[in-house]
Amino acid sequence: MMEEDMENGRSYQERPRTFSTVRSKSSIPLAFRLLMRINPRALIILSLLVFSGVLYVGASTSPIVVFVFCICTLSLFFSLYLTKWVLAKDEGPPEMSEISDAIRDGAEGFFRTQYGTISKMACILAFVILGIYLFRTTTPQQEASGLGRATSAYITVASFLLGALCSGIAGFVGMWVSVRANVRVSSAARRSAREALQIAVRAGGFSAIVVVCMAVFGVAILYSTFYVWLGVDSPGSMKVTDLPLLLVGYGFGASFVALFAQLGGGIYTKAADVGADLVGKVEQGIPEDDPRNPAVIADLVGDNVGDCAARGADLFESIAAEIISAMILGGTMAQRCKIEDPSGFILFPLVVHSFDLVVSSVGILSIRGTRDPGLISPIEDPMSIMQKGYSVTIMLAVLAFGVSTRWLLYTEQAPSAWLNFALCGLVGIITAYAFVWISKYYTDYKHEPVRLLALSSSTGHGTNIIAGVSLGMESTALPVLVISVAIISAYWLGQTSGLVDESGNPTGGLFGTAVATMGMLSTAGYVLTMDMFGPIADNAGGIVEMSQQPESVREITDVLDAVGNTTKATTKGFAIGSAGLASFLLFSAYMDEVASFAQLPFKEVDIAVPEIFVGGLLGSMLIFLFSAWACSAVGKTAQEVVNEVRRQFIERPGIMDYKEKPDYGRCVAIVASASLREMIKPGALAIISPMAVGVIFRILGHATGQPLLGAKVVASMLMFATVSGILMALFLNTAGGAWDNAKKYIETGALGGKGSESHKAAVTGDTVGDPFKDTAGPSLHVLIKMLATITLVMAPIFL
Amino acid sequence: MMEEDMENGRSYQERPRTFSTVRSKSSIPLAFRLLMRINPRALIILSLLVFSGVLYVGASTSPIVVFVFCICTLSLFFSLYLTKWVLAKDEGPPEMSEISDAIRDGAEGFFRTQYGTISKMACILAFVILGIYLFRTTTPQQEASGLGRATSAYITVASFLLGALCSGIAGFVGMWVSVRANVRVSSAARRSAREALQIAVRAGGFSAIVVVCMAVFGVAILYSTFYVWLGVDSPGSMKVTDLPLLLVGYGFGASFVALFAQLGGGIYTKAADVGADLVGKVEQGIPEDDPRNPAVIADLVGDNVGDCAARGADLFESIAAEIISAMILGGTMAQRCKIEDPSGFILFPLVVHSFDLVVSSVGILSIRGTRDPGLISPIEDPMSIMQKGYSVTIMLAVLAFGVSTRWLLYTEQAPSAWLNFALCGLVGIITAYAFVWISKYYTDYKHEPVRLLALSSSTGHGTNIIAGVSLGMESTALPVLVISVAIISAYWLGQTSGLVDESGNPTGGLFGTAVATMGMLSTAGYVLTMDMFGPIADNAGGIVEMSQQPESVREITDVLDAVGNTTKATTKGFAIGSAGLASFLLFSAYMDEVASFAQLPFKEVDIAVPEIFVGGLLGSMLIFLFSAWACSAVGKTAQEVVNEVRRQFIERPGIMDYKEKPDYGRCVAIVASASLREMIKPGALAIISPMAVGVIFRILGHATGQPLLGAKVVASMLMFATVSGILMALFLNTAGGAWDNAKKYIETGALGGKGSESHKAAVTGDTVGDPFKDTAGPSLHVLIKMLATITLVMAPIFL
Repeated sequence: MMEEDMENGRSYQERPRTFSTVRSKSSIPLAFRLLMRINPRALIILSLLVFSGVLYVGASTSPIVVFVFCICTLSLFFSLYLTKWVLAKDEGPPEMSEISDAIRDGAEGFFRTQYGTISKMACILAFVILGIYLFRTTTPQQEASGLGRATSAYITVASFLLGALCSGIAGFVGMWVSVRANVRVSSAARRSAREALQIAVRAGGFSAIVVVCMAVFGVAILYSTFYVWLGVDSPGSMKVTDLPLLLVGYGFGASFVALFAQLGGGIYTKAADVGADLVGKVEQGIPEDDPRNPAVIADLVGDNVGDCAARGADLFESIAAEIISAMILGGTMAQRCKIEDPSGFILFPLVVHSFDLVVSSVGILSIRGTRDPGLISPIEDPMSIMQKGYSVTIMLAVLAFGVSTRWLLYTEQAPSAWLNFALCGLVGIITAYAFVWISKYYTDYKHEPVRLLALSSSTGHGTNIIAGVSLGMESTALPVLVISVAIISAYWLGQTSGLVDESGNPTGGLFGTAVATMGMLSTAGYVLTMDMFGPIADNAGGIVEMSQQPESVREITDVLDAVGNTTKATTKGFAIGSAGLASFLLFSAYMDEVASFAQLPFKEVDIAVPEIFVGGLLGSMLIFLFSAWACSAVGKTAQEVVNEVRRQFIERPGIMDYKEKPDYGRCVAIVASASLREMIKPGALAIISPMAVGVIFRILGHATGQPLLGAKVVASMLMFATVSGILMALFLNTAGGAWDNAKKYIETGALGGKGSESHKAAVTGDTVGDPFKDTAGPSLHVLIKMLATITLVMAPIFL
Repeated sequence: MMEEDMENGRSYQERPRTFSTVRSKSSIPLAFRLLMRINPRALIILSLLVFSGVLYVGASTSPIVVFVFCICTLSLFFSLYLTKWVLAKDEGPPEMSEISDAIRDGAEGFFRTQYGTISKMACILAFVILGIYLFRTTTPQQEASGLGRATSAYITVASFLLGALCSGIAGFVGMWVSVRANVRVSSAARRSAREALQIAVRAGGFSAIVVVCMAVFGVAILYSTFYVWLGVDSPGSMKVTDLPLLLVGYGFGASFVALFAQLGGGIYTKAADVGADLVGKVEQGIPEDDPRNPAVIADLVGDNVGDCAARGADLFESIAAEIISAMILGGTMAQRCKIEDPSGFILFPLVVHSFDLVVSSVGILSIRGTRDPGLISPIEDPMSIMQKGYSVTIMLAVLAFGVSTRWLLYTEQAPSAWLNFALCGLVGIITAYAFVWISKYYTDYKHEPVRLLALSSSTGHGTNIIAGVSLGMESTALPVLVISVAIISAYWLGQTSGLVDESGNPTGGLFGTAVATMGMLSTAGYVLTMDMFGPIADNAGGIVEMSQQPESVREITDVLDAVGNTTKATTKGFAIGSAGLASFLLFSAYMDEVASFAQLPFKEVDIAVPEIFVGGLLGSMLIFLFSAWACSAVGKTAQEVVNEVRRQFIERPGIMDYKEKPDYGRCVAIVASASLREMIKPGALAIISPMAVGVIFRILGHATGQPLLGAKVVASMLMFATVSGILMALFLNTAGGAWDNAKKYIETGALGGKGSESHKAAVTGDTVGDPFKDTAGPSLHVLIKMLATITLVMAPIFL
């Protein structure tokens, strides 16, 4: 049956639709559909032309850009190979692909509606930015370089829109591949665990490579376009060291879309999950992903829109923001140190991520099917396979980092500076590794914390929650210590690099921190692959469960799912660490930007001033309020799901005996509309509050004769929000992950096993942890970076 | 029976001990016992002599101090009247006083052991301080005033020890009266609700008055003693404006003891409560405070040691810290503005609190028994009686504040300044009122938030916890907005008061904020009364339940208990608001102190410097880690209680049929030893971490050539910790209070009432909320102020 299905290659469109209420309109965006109508040969010629154009622009900018373009293009071909490889796998028997179709329709339907809403908001915001930039004063630098008010406005808006578009594509790609890979993983799990693992990894790898590529490509294209267009570095025009500041719109656009993608997707996935579990598991006692549960399709859809799409947008934005902030800092430093050819310092982040593409590709390829297609031998843990791949990637990354620093950061003024910066990169790589290790320690049930948490379930729901909350709060300590040591040691390595400004003061400190951040992100491609692997495996498990496959198949997907949970938890630690560092870097870029606009020195943010202290209070409060609204959105939506599921069980009593089919589509529709509604409030809070605070204190400052008050209060708000955000996100992510795994630990048979009172208490913990770790926590990562970019772009209105 | 018992006045010592394992050693501290052995007449003469001595010293200092002494003395007499009035009430039938005896023994036993441990730690710390001050460098001011290194060391240590002692007495007094009033309230509840209310209020009023008195008296005596001893303001010696800085040791001593008192007491009370509830209510289905529950006495003991003793120490320390910081700021400002007689500005806080004693006494007296001793008529809500008393107190406080500002803050340099400062006070009073109102809105089930929380229990344990967490986090927004407006408007009122320094810059801003803080605390006596009322009513309810009184009596104590819950929740809002403000004030005192020691300008704390940013990260992390450890201490101790209670139910099956008596003493002993053990870890963290951070960054600063780095990093740590602490405490307190009242709301019959699934979910929420609102939350109030005082006292080691 399966083989038949595979051989005649019947595409999913031809199969009968079972879930008629789920929308099944083709989900391919208009642009793609238009492209597909064109003759393939013409298309190839067209893309070759476009590529040569881009290459020409790149070549006029710097040979480094050409290198970046080439690596990106090769990586795109590699990702095409991966996707072809994945799509060539069979889709399994019709009962599997039927479910997978329903998931795909739900996910693509939601994606369309969600991104429709987001794009409308982005357009409105683009007009706001345009308005602000058309009426703001220009800086002396701009006037000197002939960059008019209108040009600067169009540049910012165009970067914003391009960033938003790329972020949207990053999300789309993540979801596109995951809804296609899930069924192939389930199908492969019937044959071999190793093959299933490989499919999930390569599918994840595809989107990871695309996401990293797009971030690098996008910034590189913008950079070289502006370079050529503005005639940078020719006499009387802009200096190359000022160019990166024009790119901040790109970062803001990316984080704006990522914020709403993460909020909407996060609310969707967890509301469906919590709702499905509360009635299914707790009230009716049916297992997870049971086909009788009316919310099960919504739950599986959620994994794709919440985890794949949103995390793709999140990491895209992390990388973009980090590249841009490092470019700004590199430019500023090169200018201060009067380095002759500053392009190495400016383009360094792009090269680091080009190498990232290469080493991550190697890491992805290192995970391969064994020659004899059989089950994974009992001693071979999929986690250790992934870890081995990570080790390979990290080792290569260290080498590549050394090469890039020597190549780009060598300057005759300070011959050993590149070595210091290479050490900064090493600090970043070690930090990333430490973060992954700490998250693993606190969330894996092989270690003590989760075991103690599981033990606390034996005394009831209450003690379980108390223990989980304290575990989560306690888990913030080590990462904070690590990041503190990283910031200070990287700063110190930078300061002692030998780079000095005109008056002989060391100036490399901040750039050292930037290099450490790049080091941390230098394996982003592989980390994102590990992250994407989780929801694909989760989905595959759901499809296996729903299509009622034999126990042995389920065991395989269960193992993969568990590994996916761990990788998801650990990559969150990675994401928050890099978000904190990137935000700290953007913060100093913001101070430079404000100083250049206001033509006033803006050297410090003194929290002993009452207004600035209040700004800090408001910033921290923003984090609490945002988290509250994100969590309560899940709670509210989940309650709607619970009521709907309960209603279906009452109105269709045949569901429990498999005699009636539940109405999956209704649950999908309810969750979709509720999560779109609920994402607006926290999202709007995040966008509007820094602008409102800046404007209010600007007016207050004018009234009381304190120049720059608005900008300073916003700066303090941003810093306090970053600090509280890092802590809160660490708390939420770890507590959620630990609860999840404490439940899994009990399900392995410990403390009474499934069905015991301890298990019930652990399920409560897991339910509470869901919105913590998959809605509020990841949204906070994005929020932190969004705040850093919005303040940078909106700086003119605070003055 | 009861009358008999009352008439022959049999003291509790003569009654047979039922709970033999509970220690029954006399709990009167040694000092009191020695005093009691002295002939009463000699005692009176002695105290008269002491008083005249004190009055003489006061008179040599300032007539204002004499006024303060007189008011304090009168208030002490008033508190004696209150305690006599309360103790004259009957102790009820033997079954009641038997229980009350057990509670008293447990409470006093724990208090003895706990304060034994605390006093040992205080002595060690005193030696550390002595060592630091003996080896530190002296400031030019000190050298000019002839204040030697040794004198300064002895002064600081003496203030520290006196503060610690007074804080201990404040805690002891709170507990002493509450373990005596509880049984009298239960007994009175058999006759009249109003009488029961009045006894509880007056008992609470007694300790409130004593606590406020001691804070004011202590500071005033230290101030005038130092004034006379050091010959202040005589040529060649210290200036009066520098004097308040010598008092910081007092604040640190007070907050040191309060921290451990709150931690130990908070862990005790909630571990016992959670443990008793988890087995009793959830597993065995017996009601709260049922005599069959082996942990019930421990639970009732906890109310006394956790709520009465600890909150007494907490508010004592709040008032002391706030008085001292306001005195420092008043002195600094008076010096800058060259005000001729600065004593008005310095002594202002003492006068405000003297008036506080008067108006709070009136407020306490305004709550009186109706003439016909009957039940409260159904329309008369005890809450509204308390509110009426509060309104009376507030109105009088506004008047008194106006009078004090006109009297002390009038200066010819700026004739309208006193009016601005009076408005600052009004800002503070309004802030206090707003805080009380907001806490009430979020925690009272008359309002929407708690109702929605209760509704979320109907979909299970998980949604209830999610909703509670989001409610708590959301509830931080309004208080932060209120406190932001308060800080800025008070600062602005101060700046525009017309007080200018030598170069004509306005300087009154910070003092304006200080005056607002005083305004906020100007009804502290009454607020503390309301707060103390709660645990007494709670205990009375427990005694009524345990002695199996008729339903009608229980109804009365239940109403009082519910009112007590609300007042407890609202006063916590008050406490955190004032803690935040006081900490902000101490922060600027710290900067002045450091600048004067280091003889370097210390004007700003610039968070754009990486090390200072890291300090902020560490400060916020401290709050998360401290909360984690406080919560997990409760969880761990509660698990021990659960195991013990389960064991007793298994080993003594007759307990459930009232045939066997549970071993209450064992539970008391377990909780006591566990909470003493568990309070050390978070307490040590709070003491050691700022010192460690300061020293590490001092060394780092020396190595990298950044002077004052240690002091600056500590400053940033302090500020971030304050901000995160305020938010975390608001979150924990409100979430806890809301869960408690959501449960109570369901128990009124809503959503299925007692025993329904919703109720079970609500009980889980209540259990989780217990350590939030009564251990971690209140400990954070104390922590915030402790951090502010420890940095001030330990400043020499950061340089």
